[in-house]
Amino acid sequence: MKKLTISVLLIIAFAFNVTGQRKTINLPDLPGYVTLKCDFHLHTVFSDGNVWPAVRIDEALRDGLDAIAITDHLEYTPKKDYVPVDFNAAWKIGEKYANERNFILVHGTEITRKMPPGHFNALFIQDANLLAVDSVMDAYEAAIKQGAFLQWNHPGWKSQEPDGIPKLYPIHMNLLEKGWIHGIEFFNDNEYYPLVLTFCKQYNLAVMGNSDNHGVISEDYQKPAWPNRPMTLVFAKSRTSDALKEALFAGRTLVYFGDKIAGKEEYAKPFFYLCISVGKSYGENEKSIFFEVTNKSDVPFYLVNGIPEAPSSIYLTANSVTRVVLSKKVTSPLIYDVKNIMTGENEMLKIELKY
Amino acid sequence: MKKLTISVLLIIAFAFNVTGQRKTINLPDLPGYVTLKCDFHLHTVFSDGNVWPAVRIDEALRDGLDAIAITDHLEYTPKKDYVPVDFNAAWKIGEKYANERNFILVHGTEITRKMPPGHFNALFIQDANLLAVDSVMDAYEAAIKQGAFLQWNHPGWKSQEPDGIPKLYPIHMNLLEKGWIHGIEFFNDNEYYPLVLTFCKQYNLAVMGNSDNHGVISEDYQKPAWPNRPMTLVFAKSRTSDALKEALFAGRTLVYFGDKIAGKEEYAKPFFYLCISVGKSYGENEKSIFFEVTNKSDVPFYLVNGIPEAPSSIYLTANSVTRVVLSKKVTSPLIYDVKNIMTGENEMLKIELKY
Amino acid sequence: MKKLTISVLLIIAFAFNVTGQRKTINLPDLPGYVTLKCDFHLHTVFSDGNVWPAVRIDEALRDGLDAIAITDHLEYTPKKDYVPVDFNAAWKIGEKYANERNFILVHGTEITRKMPPGHFNALFIQDANLLAVDSVMDAYEAAIKQGAFLQWNHPGWKSQEPDGIPKLYPIHMNLLEKGWIHGIEFFNDNEYYPLVLTFCKQYNLAVMGNSDNHGVISEDYQKPAWPNRPMTLVFAKSRTSDALKEALFAGRTLVYFGDKIAGKEEYAKPFFYLCISVGKSYGENEKSIFFEVTNKSDVPFYLVNGIPEAPSSIYLTANSVTRVVLSKKVTSPLIYDVKNIMTGENEMLKIELKY
Amino acid sequence: MKKLTISVLLIIAFAFNVTGQRKTINLPDLPGYVTLKCDFHLHTVFSDGNVWPAVRIDEALRDGLDAIAITDHLEYTPKKDYVPVDFNAAWKIGEKYANERNFILVHGTEITRKMPPGHFNALFIQDANLLAVDSVMDAYEAAIKQGAFLQWNHPGWKSQEPDGIPKLYPIHMNLLEKGWIHGIEFFNDNEYYPLVLTFCKQYNLAVMGNSDNHGVISEDYQKPAWPNRPMTLVFAKSRTSDALKEALFAGRTLVYFGDKIAGKEEYAKPFFYLCISVGKSYGENEKSIFFEVTNKSDVPFYLVNGIPEAPSSIYLTANSVTRVVLSKKVTSPLIYDVKNIMTGENEMLKIELKY
Repeated sequence: MKKLTISVLLIIAFAFNVTGQRKTINLPDLPGYVTLKCDFHLHTVFSDGNVWPAVRIDEALRDGLDAIAITDHLEYTPKKDYVPVDFNAAWKIGEKYANERNFILVHGTEITRKMPPGHFNALFIQDANLLAVDSVMDAYEAAIKQGAFLQWNHPGWKSQEPDGIPKLYPIHMNLLEKGWIHGIEFFNDNEYYPLVLTFCKQYNLAVMGNSDNHGVISEDYQKPAWPNRPMTLVFAKSRTSDALKEALFAGRTLVYFGDKIAGKEEYAKPFFYLCISVGKSYGENEKSIFFEVTNKSDVPFYLVNGIPEAPSSIYLTANSVTRVVLSKKVTSPLIYDVKNIMTGENEMLKIELKY
Repeated sequence: MKKLTISVLLIIAFAFNVTGQRKTINLPDLPGYVTLKCDFHLHTVFSDGNVWPAVRIDEALRDGLDAIAITDHLEYTPKKDYVPVDFNAAWKIGEKYANERNFILVHGTEITRKMPPGHFNALFIQDANLLAVDSVMDAYEAAIKQGAFLQWNHPGWKSQEPDGIPKLYPIHMNLLEKGWIHGIEFFNDNEYYPLVLTFCKQYNLAVMGNSDNHGVISEDYQKPAWPNRPMTLVFAKSRTSDALKEALFAGRTLVYFGDKIAGKEEYAKPFFYLCISVGKSYGENEKSIFFEVTNKSDVPFYLVNGIPEAPSSIYLTANSVTRVVLSKKVTSPLIYDVKNIMTGENEMLKIELKY
Repeated sequence: MKKLTISVLLIIAFAFNVTGQRKTINLPDLPGYVTLKCDFHLHTVFSDGNVWPAVRIDEALRDGLDAIAITDHLEYTPKKDYVPVDFNAAWKIGEKYANERNFILVHGTEITRKMPPGHFNALFIQDANLLAVDSVMDAYEAAIKQGAFLQWNHPGWKSQEPDGIPKLYPIHMNLLEKGWIHGIEFFNDNEYYPLVLTFCKQYNLAVMGNSDNHGVISEDYQKPAWPNRPMTLVFAKSRTSDALKEALFAGRTLVYFGDKIAGKEEYAKPFFYLCISVGKSYGENEKSIFFEVTNKSDVPFYLVNGIPEAPSSIYLTANSVTRVVLSKKVTSPLIYDVKNIMTGENEMLKIELKY
Repeated sequence: MKKLTISVLLIIAFAFNVTGQRKTINLPDLPGYVTLKCDFHLHTVFSDGNVWPAVRIDEALRDGLDAIAITDHLEYTPKKDYVPVDFNAAWKIGEKYANERNFILVHGTEITRKMPPGHFNALFIQDANLLAVDSVMDAYEAAIKQGAFLQWNHPGWKSQEPDGIPKLYPIHMNLLEKGWIHGIEFFNDNEYYPLVLTFCKQYNLAVMGNSDNHGVISEDYQKPAWPNRPMTLVFAKSRTSDALKEALFAGRTLVYFGDKIAGKEEYAKPFFYLCISVGKSYGENEKSIFFEVTNKSDVPFYLVNGIPEAPSSIYLTANSVTRVVLSKKVTSPLIYDVKNIMTGENEMLKIELKY
């Protein structure tokens, strides 16, 4: 007889921060694409963040992300008395580090202006120094010349929009006409802006979700309250930087934070159906039949507004099988709204359970 | 702007014990079989346990099991002044309850004698009362007549074998000759008996792992110390009671507890290779190449005894991708022992990583 | 050099359910009294609960309680086909078990009737069988003859009061006139009834808070969502059953659940001031002074409605020291409402921070 | 009726990193002293660490520490291409930040040489630049001239002492003669060096325990495996930098990590007795009496080597009351070794339970 008090591996798992490992986030790939988990808004000691660039890559690997952009401010560098301004520093430090870890680092920066136009991230650039110019339009133009993807950050941030409502000012309309806005943040840290879905659908932009983290990810998104940081799910043709860029310009994204998914219905609908499978009914009694719904993903789904006689709501726990008891009186299709998948400013995804 | 403090679903998940849900245990199916997760040794208030039979089914559903047997003692009923002896009570209470939940309840009982022969569970019986007889051989015979699978429980339990070493006494040899032992417990609660692997290989028996729980599973196997209770993984042709029984008699099992797997190599080897996938090498520097190993299962694997120049050990975290940095000097196959897969009394599973 | 991977004691703490131990709940004693933590409403297999009586005592010890009452239903015994009706069973099983553990078991039962009058617990009885009579008034009288404390349970339970509002029906008025209601539940499981504070103040009754648990406490009140079950804090002259009874009849209680305290101001106010201490101001800058507030208790306090120029709210984390930055413009007393201490149907406790 | 799903405060506690708060570490003060919890060995981006100095103070406040020293390497500055060398940078950044938070920041640096003499921290200095000189003895002398406390770091670190055993080389003997070693690390991160207790007792030095952290404390010491980082408990006359310095030079310390305490018996013994209290015996049966031991501290104690007939070991869970069942045959004093209080290289603290 041997006592298995706690075995070697569990001790290892508890005691150490095992590095060089990337946890699996259970989310489906859409047909023809791989789902890349990305955070395109992060800060380091090279602007007003508190950590070294390599920390951002280590955090993202551990959390199961595929790509990040480090986007230090061009116009706000409060640590410059100790850390000289170098807008490409994080990229230079991180590029090789990321490559050796099979991780995509996107070269980025944050053009940090008053509203309007507010803050914008330039992603997939070559040289951030060329964007450090007085005129904001010149800065955007310098980014565009480098082939950058321009993301409008936290458009309803209360420090810049006291009512919290994003607004399209003339400069935004001008940028949209030029094709110089490619995506807008719906999630920024623990805020979200429902109106962004309307803008993105109207102007065919990518819906973005990012952490904008300045501190330590694991402290700012503590489990179980926050199972993950805000992230952009990008449906890319392959797991490369180029494919990521192509997918972003094509607007193939959803955003994910906590237990909420948001984005365009054309991606949200197949995404949901790939997360779940509905079993055959397996038994019955005089009043009811039973069937099971398997949720293979890390996202719980909360089905609401059930039809008469059907359960009014069903909670599909993540990575679990849920039993549904259905009255024999129900003959219509089992239509539900998915409360935590937002497809419009005031819209939930509508789905059907086919058992 | 809206603040996502904590959204509705997370509150639900925290605050309630959502019932009617079965979490997914990530373990592969072997080709042609489904992997049923089972606990064939549990007690209730009908012998010396502290909970009602329905609790056993609820616990098992929540933990992602497919089948349990409630096996109250025939010969030890300390609560009989308050709960009259009824050896089939748990079965009668639980049968319909399990069926409506798509769950397999196995009718069982524990024949509870001094060593030798010790304690035996009779599984897949029809009437436990017929086994409540004086002679232990008569009890076994009554079980065999009902088509029972006979499992020798905790053969090295210190209360019955002070040195903790299981022994085959004449009565066991007699039973083996008659074909009246079909499986032996390797795991019982937090004990394990390495010699059981030798016995099971020699006599072609099923290796069994069970909790033998008398209290509350969630209190006795608290996370993170114990990610799961001890369980028997049965490779069955389908998810039915009959298929489960067929698989047990055929000896198609592994056992799983904490981070340890044990059993016959013929099942352990394909099981391991179905848990992991090895990626192509994705980069290199002057000294090393890199590749990734994905562990798609809930079991971490600890590879040890690496060949010269290769990493001496590799820890494959559960549900994670592990990066391996390999010296260019290595040209031989990457052979490892899997420290936490036991295939014999002193044997670990030997595997190769093909990248 | 030695590596402290994980030391022996931590392994013990993880791996086992150490029994015979009572955790300390950090709550202050009021002057002249000890604060007894109690749950006066619990069920077992002897009515419609799912566990054995000893489990209730083990759970309470582990959770740091001083006293419980097991209060199985007189009129609802759905397990009677398997467990014969014995209204004193839990008491007989638990009395010696509790004594040897320095734990107070209160002999109780639940008189379970339709509303009105609803469900009542009789506590500190001698023989529950004498209360199993047809007329509910006879049942109360039998309890009173035994010196019982009568507690009105969940008066706003939706199954009996569809609008969730407790109501004083003629039978309740009659009972109040006779002095046959001694306490009312404010907390019952995860419900609470604000109006109970009004009733208790008007009729000078004890405010009660209990779990009414039928399953397993540790599963139904999982950390971190629920740091504790609902409980009644009784300010007793000593830690004995007699002193507990005296204090209940005198109405010296508060109730505590999650992060909420409720009860009469005469107990809530000194309780709050004994939980915290305010330090001297320790520094200043041109605009502000600093001081610290130490919260020595397990209850966080959320101070709201601050005076102009002072922080509008202050969150005093449990078992922590909180720094307050105070504008030099503030000259008035620092008055706050304690949002999570309810002293009336629509009343929060008002306090002053004296630094 | 209201449902308390999860109340406001719990949501706050989950969702945010509440800042400006210091958790209480439950450890007793020795008579005449306050117990200051300190970490005298920490790195930042100004040498080879990965975080900004303010992070070190925030981490320490949150963890309940009273003082830290940031001790960046003088001789190892791998980030100097991006962060210019400034040996006083962390002090300049942190001094005011600490003062406003009622926190003690000790000005320090690490003199980083090959073994012998190995690495030394100079604490309570005025100008680290004056220590950046070629000769190590000159560096020490410069520190001593500033009134520094000199701490020998990780004397058995395998990178410098392959056998893990600390050794007193001639240069150490020379330093001891001059009085230039004032303390030695017993704990450094998750290593410890038993021989340090011998050295500290022989030469009357302070026993030190520190984290030597380069990353993020909350990631490197994750609960529950590590309830705290390694720390030095300093018994100071008051909570000031001067009193802290006086106490260190006087050698009034213990060290604490995980569940282990180490140090000189003169401090360990009163410390233990102030952590626990033993109640009167409260009952008996024919064979045994019962009494309770209350452990008011955050440190569990594991009593071993009990006298005949007494329990051979007793586990006193932190912040808990433990019941002891004692045979009536025991008449001698209840002597135990405290397994997790080390008072010498091979010595545990010996104590008596007086009930």
